[in-house]
Amino acid sequence: MRNLLLLLGAAAALNYAAAADPREAGVLDQCQAPFAKLRSVPVRAVTIRDGFWSARRKVNVERSIPTMLELLEEHGVLDNFRRLTGRKAAPRRGPLYTDSDIYKWIEAAAFVLQSEDRPDLRVKVDRAIEEILAAQEPSGYLNTYYVDERKALRFTEVTRSHETYNLGHLLQGAIALYRANGERRLLDAGIKFVNYLMDNFGRTKRPLSSDHPEIELALVELYRTTRDRRYLDFAAYFLEGDGERLKLAPRDLVYMFSGKPFTARTKLEGHAVRAMYACSGATDYFLETGDAAYWKTLERLWEDLTRRKMYITGGVGSRAVGEAFGEPYELPNQLAYTESCAAIGNFMWNWRMLAATADARFADVLERALYNGVNSGMSLDGTLYCYRNPLELVGNPDDKIRNPWYSTTCCPPNLQRTLASLPGYFYSTSAEGVYVHLYDNNELDWRLESGTPLRLRQTTRYPWDGNVTIEVQPASPAEFTLFVRIPEWSARTKVAVNGAPVAAVKPGTYLPLRRQWKAGDTISLSFDVAPRLTAANPRVRDSFARVAVERGPLVYAMEEIDQKGAGSLFDLRLELAGGRPRFRETYVPEKLGGIVELRHPGVEVVPPSATRPLYSPLQPAARPHGAPRELVLIPYYAFANREPTAMMVWIPYGP
Amino acid sequence: MRNLLLLLGAAAALNYAAAADPREAGVLDQCQAPFAKLRSVPVRAVTIRDGFWSARRKVNVERSIPTMLELLEEHGVLDNFRRLTGRKAAPRRGPLYTDSDIYKWIEAAAFVLQSEDRPDLRVKVDRAIEEILAAQEPSGYLNTYYVDERKALRFTEVTRSHETYNLGHLLQGAIALYRANGERRLLDAGIKFVNYLMDNFGRTKRPLSSDHPEIELALVELYRTTRDRRYLDFAAYFLEGDGERLKLAPRDLVYMFSGKPFTARTKLEGHAVRAMYACSGATDYFLETGDAAYWKTLERLWEDLTRRKMYITGGVGSRAVGEAFGEPYELPNQLAYTESCAAIGNFMWNWRMLAATADARFADVLERALYNGVNSGMSLDGTLYCYRNPLELVGNPDDKIRNPWYSTTCCPPNLQRTLASLPGYFYSTSAEGVYVHLYDNNELDWRLESGTPLRLRQTTRYPWDGNVTIEVQPASPAEFTLFVRIPEWSARTKVAVNGAPVAAVKPGTYLPLRRQWKAGDTISLSFDVAPRLTAANPRVRDSFARVAVERGPLVYAMEEIDQKGAGSLFDLRLELAGGRPRFRETYVPEKLGGIVELRHPGVEVVPPSATRPLYSPLQPAARPHGAPRELVLIPYYAFANREPTAMMVWIPYGP
Repeated sequence: MRNLLLLLGAAAALNYAAAADPREAGVLDQCQAPFAKLRSVPVRAVTIRDGFWSARRKVNVERSIPTMLELLEEHGVLDNFRRLTGRKAAPRRGPLYTDSDIYKWIEAAAFVLQSEDRPDLRVKVDRAIEEILAAQEPSGYLNTYYVDERKALRFTEVTRSHETYNLGHLLQGAIALYRANGERRLLDAGIKFVNYLMDNFGRTKRPLSSDHPEIELALVELYRTTRDRRYLDFAAYFLEGDGERLKLAPRDLVYMFSGKPFTARTKLEGHAVRAMYACSGATDYFLETGDAAYWKTLERLWEDLTRRKMYITGGVGSRAVGEAFGEPYELPNQLAYTESCAAIGNFMWNWRMLAATADARFADVLERALYNGVNSGMSLDGTLYCYRNPLELVGNPDDKIRNPWYSTTCCPPNLQRTLASLPGYFYSTSAEGVYVHLYDNNELDWRLESGTPLRLRQTTRYPWDGNVTIEVQPASPAEFTLFVRIPEWSARTKVAVNGAPVAAVKPGTYLPLRRQWKAGDTISLSFDVAPRLTAANPRVRDSFARVAVERGPLVYAMEEIDQKGAGSLFDLRLELAGGRPRFRETYVPEKLGGIVELRHPGVEVVPPSATRPLYSPLQPAARPHGAPRELVLIPYYAFANREPTAMMVWIPYGP
Repeated sequence: MRNLLLLLGAAAALNYAAAADPREAGVLDQCQAPFAKLRSVPVRAVTIRDGFWSARRKVNVERSIPTMLELLEEHGVLDNFRRLTGRKAAPRRGPLYTDSDIYKWIEAAAFVLQSEDRPDLRVKVDRAIEEILAAQEPSGYLNTYYVDERKALRFTEVTRSHETYNLGHLLQGAIALYRANGERRLLDAGIKFVNYLMDNFGRTKRPLSSDHPEIELALVELYRTTRDRRYLDFAAYFLEGDGERLKLAPRDLVYMFSGKPFTARTKLEGHAVRAMYACSGATDYFLETGDAAYWKTLERLWEDLTRRKMYITGGVGSRAVGEAFGEPYELPNQLAYTESCAAIGNFMWNWRMLAATADARFADVLERALYNGVNSGMSLDGTLYCYRNPLELVGNPDDKIRNPWYSTTCCPPNLQRTLASLPGYFYSTSAEGVYVHLYDNNELDWRLESGTPLRLRQTTRYPWDGNVTIEVQPASPAEFTLFVRIPEWSARTKVAVNGAPVAAVKPGTYLPLRRQWKAGDTISLSFDVAPRLTAANPRVRDSFARVAVERGPLVYAMEEIDQKGAGSLFDLRLELAGGRPRFRETYVPEKLGGIVELRHPGVEVVPPSATRPLYSPLQPAARPHGAPRELVLIPYYAFANREPTAMMVWIPYGP
């Protein structure tokens, strides 16, 4: 603690105006954001116990984060810094955004350190930081690509340089680390680089654009961390875009989702990760400024996302070309691009929209993305990652959908930082009380905004079953509202407080439970996790006349490997003879880390489609003809964790 | 005739060993091909009368071909030659394959000249040839791109140069012209260039590859024209591929469909036009050599095409990226790339497969491509062209699917040469008699292979109705077989000879009518053109649970503009309550140049899909709910000939 106070003292000397202990800031620090209805709680305030997320978080800390540092070293990402300080003589390696990979890794490690003291990890982070800091130029410029013969190109390759993108990730990593243990050397380095940029670029100076949005949200968080308003204004500069002066082409403005006023956007288009990060940054900006034009645009884009352009997994980005959004309803399953980073971007954006509104629809999308399109991105053993998260695979043995490394390795550390920061997403506070967003065994140890210390303890087998008990323990009896999220998918939810049922529970809302809470009060929730059959809008061509199976927050999928006795996965149909589903639900502890497996009657259509002609006369009256088969479904997130096999989310059904 | 004989005399002096009058050669000259079962008849031997194709051919000659020459001039395609001879001082314009555009235009004009003497057109062709010939270098090299500062790059840009592609089109144009009127200056220029290549490149010389297959089929036709076997061997060199010596990357071998042995191919992949041209060239090579390894590969690729990778329109190429084939069953409708040139390539390939086998399945595909995916490529007025021929359009007013010009303007002259040469595809001869492939009002004036002159006259309203009368007029009574094609789509066909019914008529075959034919004999055919409902293999994701409507050889489509009183096209369903279609068929002479319009009961589903959520609980038992609507369908080829409007081929149906 003494060390920390010393560090804080030094921070004050550097004009860090943020009064609070940095360790009390959450994933976002909206404590002073005038237009935030919700405020994050510190990551360390929530302890996730054994349950659904504990296994994922365990491999993240024990396998994924350590092996990723080894891989980053192996591929020269840190050597790219060392060569600038003469510590390593080697050519620069990798694409121009590799710096961001180590910054994101540091952020992931920092979130771990926010939750627990891991000296070994702290040492690794310290070493990485030293290599980075040593490479910073006296001006503040810090980038391993635009050096040597490329130095003259700095800030000229305005549609590809990733200079501000790398800096944004540096800042995010530095802020997470500062919030972990007050360590601010990396933060100071980031501030120095930002100050250099502000000295040279801006509306009345040289023009600059974020070719890959990221700097915007990082600058708002830097403003929150330092209370230096110039950083917020600089974020606004990027959000407004200086593309005219930079002569950006219309296609660049689409692809980059940057360079023109964010408030002039009317639809999601272009590179999906860029768009999601831009929306996140714009929402952060709104939280601080309340600019109505921003809100109008954000609402419009969110409608475009959720009504026309989002996969059922919460994944986004339909096209490999340009890693881009498609046209409305263009959501191909097999060809889905659905980059892990884009699903994370969707998750990040909805977290900010939720903070602005406390509206449960944003939490529903956040949960959808988290449990499915994000969660699928890391293998169960924590060593393989999806770049793409398609909703259908043909099962080509050569398909490698999960890999330990990508030359563009943005997704793995992005998944790591998301899992490491996950405790920070379970709760928020508001002036009225506490919001409960997510469910799993965990404890909150924090305080109401009034200052009253508060503990909450969740006990549950969620998402495998729908029962959740929340024990409430304020330090002293206090009147406040406990806002309990009722997921949109839970058609019939039972809620009781100390055994007394609560009426009028509506799906897709936060149920406000206001009373004088005292230690030992208990809330019982019973969500309806009965398997559901979900249809897509008929304009979604690839999912037409098909059905997806969901259970609680989980989207399910069929893998061919599970369909014993059947031929091709693509000849199976879900049999809905009575019009009602007839699922068998079994918790299988030894399968895929423990899952509820679903089984449902089906039919294997004959003759097999592979032997049938491409075009043939329609047999409209004919029901699928074939052998009865029990279809086996697993949660989508666990797909491709065994041998290569065909997979599908959207299943044909009959009759 | 005297002129022609003089020309032929000169040709003989240049070692043209082909004995026959070049004007007696058809689209292909398989007269001496040992492995051809069928032989083409000259284009000029068939006169197409007023009917389905006459209007298309009329705009082709009167609007399309003349305006295209103007556009080629406007865009500098001929100036690219003139600048090399000092006749024009201007920078070179257009991509590196513009030479092929004028060669293809010459080929189109030459086919017109094979049918009729058009002095104005002949003058234009002559002028173009002069510009081209003047630009040929003494060595024989002729190319407007690899000149000046790019001269050093000749034959080095092995994955993009199009040098052999341009030459292939030069040869095809030159041969068509030679067959029109014995004009052989362009042919001599082509031969000179080919000889230059053979002097410098080959298995024991410098390596060369066809980065865009085309030279292969042109060289075989050059062999057929000159009987110089070195050209056939040189074609084999390209078909075998010299990619190892050229160090072509695996992705180049896929994309180019060239550079490795054709006989090592196991599937269609890469650039669709390249693949179709390669298959055409390989079939030509088989026709001359009977190489069994080629046939095995051709059969395998044809199965891959027709079982997994061909649109119902005969279009091919699913992906915009790389203008490429997709995975098996990857046949998206809205995103279909289906370049006009690829459908033409499919048509060309099947013509060659048909020549090798006399198997009607190849004629079925040829007819499918011709009437639909090729025919759609040119607007009804002959001035606008499709590059892509998608099977669905959302009806964005900014969509310009038909355009007068493309910077890569390969498709327009390709369509022109196809329509101009069309008479040459109606009949073939064999040792046993005559094959009738296509139906329309027309007259054949040719001879049996025995030498007996033979006239045939077809009278029909095909494809609008299914009745065809063929009058047979041998110069003297002769026993031979008239092979009449029974399309695969005609479930019940009636055939009579001189009024006497013929039994055992099978769809998808050539019906052999062998007898002593005498002048005045008449064959009556009655094909079943009742509208048909066609289903796609269920693995075709985009067409799952949808139906296509076909009538005779025509695929039909719905355009939103025709659906009076309805909202979005995408809310319409075909109503098949009784399981049987109930079409109303009306010939509407004033609509779209005269079409049989189809009407069928349907439903407009409410609420409109645009207002519905992206995902919602399945209502499995519910029938589509909405207002009855009569759906209006037009032939696919006529789509987008009015204002921009939504269009679909694959229609949802209920119940």
